[in-house]
Amino acid sequence: MPKEHFDQQLDTLKQRLLDMSHGVEEQVAEAVALATRQESIEPEEILERDQEIDDEEVAIEETAIELLALHQPMAIDLRTIVTILKINNDLERVGDHAVNIAEAVLRLREKGEYPPVPPQLEEMNRLARGILRDALDAFVNLDAETARQLGARDDEVDALHESVFRVMLTHMLDEDISACLQMLLISRNIERIADHAVNIGEDVVYLVQGRTIRHTGGKDEEGEGGGRQRDGSPVSA
Amino acid sequence: MPKEHFDQQLDTLKQRLLDMSHGVEEQVAEAVALATRQESIEPEEILERDQEIDDEEVAIEETAIELLALHQPMAIDLRTIVTILKINNDLERVGDHAVNIAEAVLRLREKGEYPPVPPQLEEMNRLARGILRDALDAFVNLDAETARQLGARDDEVDALHESVFRVMLTHMLDEDISACLQMLLISRNIERIADHAVNIGEDVVYLVQGRTIRHTGGKDEEGEGGGRQRDGSPVSA
Repeated sequence: MPKEHFDQQLDTLKQRLLDMSHGVEEQVAEAVALATRQESIEPEEILERDQEIDDEEVAIEETAIELLALHQPMAIDLRTIVTILKINNDLERVGDHAVNIAEAVLRLREKGEYPPVPPQLEEMNRLARGILRDALDAFVNLDAETARQLGARDDEVDALHESVFRVMLTHMLDEDISACLQMLLISRNIERIADHAVNIGEDVVYLVQGRTIRHTGGKDEEGEGGGRQRDGSPVSA
Repeated sequence: MPKEHFDQQLDTLKQRLLDMSHGVEEQVAEAVALATRQESIEPEEILERDQEIDDEEVAIEETAIELLALHQPMAIDLRTIVTILKINNDLERVGDHAVNIAEAVLRLREKGEYPPVPPQLEEMNRLARGILRDALDAFVNLDAETARQLGARDDEVDALHESVFRVMLTHMLDEDISACLQMLLISRNIERIADHAVNIGEDVVYLVQGRTIRHTGGKDEEGEGGGRQRDGSPVSA
């Protein structure tokens, strides 16, 4: 198959990944709107839409492997497809965090008791979605510099989660403990969304520079590498 | 390069992945020993060893991509390398959960207050490590049947985590809430380790059968597919 044909297929695949990322981002927005009681849809709808995201993840992965098999790409093309496989996986997990948030809202509704909504959640949501969007933009523009700076922005999200933790701890003394735990869980899921966005950024740096900044932590020039799979803050619940 | 050479390199890579999985499994064992106060090493040692696992993950990934680039494998060989990339990623995350547990133990020590150790933790640990070991064995033996049954065993881990949650909720009324939350966090990390092991099993089914059982949930014959990235139980903290 001619190279132009491969390039075209790879572009189509990239576009599918971007479309998926928009769908995932919307899921997060709707889930957090539910958690902060500004909902425009019901939790069940988020659960249903997640099925579409799951299907799309599988389809993107199959197409990526097909491209590997049929065209046997080299160098940057090979790295691009491997990066698509990784971003695809992280995006699907972000979608799962939106589902977790919707399910926590369902449990809060069952209880009929709603603890005070921590005001930090909206800022966390804004930051996490911003990091996610910029990570995908960095992928499209092969912009290692932006990708590399995402970790510092994630630290803000971690700090906000930590303050939610402290506030909810205070409320637990007076209010329903398990309702407070659901709210903490919501905060933690937003915090994890930002972690996945940082992972995507790290994959973009790898793609552009051909070397990994994962796990390098303070040893990286910018000091913002480092695995983000870990519990984000010392108080992660 | 001749095919025998490729086969040999692929075998070497598989062996490295298995060696890494043994290291990761040991990290989990040591972390849970710390949490249940039967430690033989200090938490800091787990943090140090995690760096080695992180380095090995990066090295395995680089080797896998090199194999893709140099040999342009087809069919089962291509799927094997993609599966190695995925298992590698899940194993590294399991290692991070061991670190999370060690860090929770450090925070408990700082507090000087240790809530009662939930007896379920040891059984959860035994089950989670068993699932992980069998997932890797299924990979080596291309045993889709065993891989497919891991989800049912994960349900047991979820149920145990749920019962830990209920016990800790009771303790929170009398004891230090944030110490109880650390213990809950430990339980949750063990629960997530089992989820990653199930993911590995799903990748093995894909490898053997060439079709994915991810996200299929109840629609799968065995009813044990389904994404395991989500919060495992309705009370996940």
